[in-house]
Amino acid sequence: MRKGLFIAFEGIDGAGKTTQLLRIAAWLEAQGFAVVVTREPGGTRIGDAVRAILLDPRHQEMAPRTEALLYAASRAQHVEELIRPALMRGEIVLCDRFVDASIAYQGAGLGLGEAWVEALNDYALGGLRPDLTLWFDLDWATARARLHARADGRGLDRVERRDRAFFERVADAFERLWQADPQARRRIDASRTPEEIEQEIRAMVWNLIQQHL
Amino acid sequence: MRKGLFIAFEGIDGAGKTTQLLRIAAWLEAQGFAVVVTREPGGTRIGDAVRAILLDPRHQEMAPRTEALLYAASRAQHVEELIRPALMRGEIVLCDRFVDASIAYQGAGLGLGEAWVEALNDYALGGLRPDLTLWFDLDWATARARLHARADGRGLDRVERRDRAFFERVADAFERLWQADPQARRRIDASRTPEEIEQEIRAMVWNLIQQHL
Repeated sequence: MRKGLFIAFEGIDGAGKTTQLLRIAAWLEAQGFAVVVTREPGGTRIGDAVRAILLDPRHQEMAPRTEALLYAASRAQHVEELIRPALMRGEIVLCDRFVDASIAYQGAGLGLGEAWVEALNDYALGGLRPDLTLWFDLDWATARARLHARADGRGLDRVERRDRAFFERVADAFERLWQADPQARRRIDASRTPEEIEQEIRAMVWNLIQQHL
Repeated sequence: MRKGLFIAFEGIDGAGKTTQLLRIAAWLEAQGFAVVVTREPGGTRIGDAVRAILLDPRHQEMAPRTEALLYAASRAQHVEELIRPALMRGEIVLCDRFVDASIAYQGAGLGLGEAWVEALNDYALGGLRPDLTLWFDLDWATARARLHARADGRGLDRVERRDRAFFERVADAFERLWQADPQARRRIDASRTPEEIEQEIRAMVWNLIQQHL
């Protein structure tokens, strides 16, 4: 029997989800909750090895189906090895990207079809879904400017290098996912200050804790 | 329009498929055919990186679904980048393991279900199937003895280390696949001498060439 809470942070690169995830983790820990912070692709030793293949800028020849299958493989390992055990222990899992990212990036962005990517992931996960998904909605130009400000030194990875049209398909897909289920998925206006955003998310998460834990 | 011929070599480790694949390749090249020799997992730069994750003996924590998805990812890349282009050029592709290996090893061996692994691979491949699959049928004890004789120095990989019950499930699945379609799949009695086996395969391949090329 699953006891914990599973919250996914979604949105295009540069939308601010990682910053907020770390703030919410610190706040929850200060309240005395056991919190697991993780990310995709990766989160496990095998997942990190898959992540290195996925993000390597030299791998320009990667076929779209290969990409979707590698993300699903990394996620299957992540769920079995880390997320499900933490939820069984009653912990709060905060995950930087999850299934919605695959539906948006590979399903819509790469054109594989959102329904198929969703079906593939349903299998890979044995049906596990987040209790809450926070979609960080930010226009591409602002997100890109933040990304460039941050990326000096390391350079953009293979996915971050894609063009504006790709990210617009991704953003449209995130919006469709949110519209399809505005209870399980919440839209976060990511153009505001980090403090404003954090206050809103704290209220959402607190509400969820009251209902579930 | 596809023009070449695609032949897969299947069977448990130690059954002799790689030896025969190389012999048949040399014979076909001597007849003047353009031949591509390849293997799974691997066959491409990205596939080889996935292969290293799959076969690493340290990765004991790998979940069965992760394994099936990684094999499918490697295969999707292999088909898009190497096999389909070679077939379009009219070449003969000889592949050491293909979809039947996943159906047998992950579907039956790991218990994920043969039908699901087949469905996953149909998607990963966009429907591509071998023109002929040669199933090297050999009892486990003989195959294992050959494997140990060969493996001194490198040691067994993560999959080769599995127990006898695993390989018996795998062998039973290969037999079911062959029985389900004895035209597209041929059983090779792999207990005979390499010379006898090679003569039989030459005849099968020559027959296929007469029909298709």
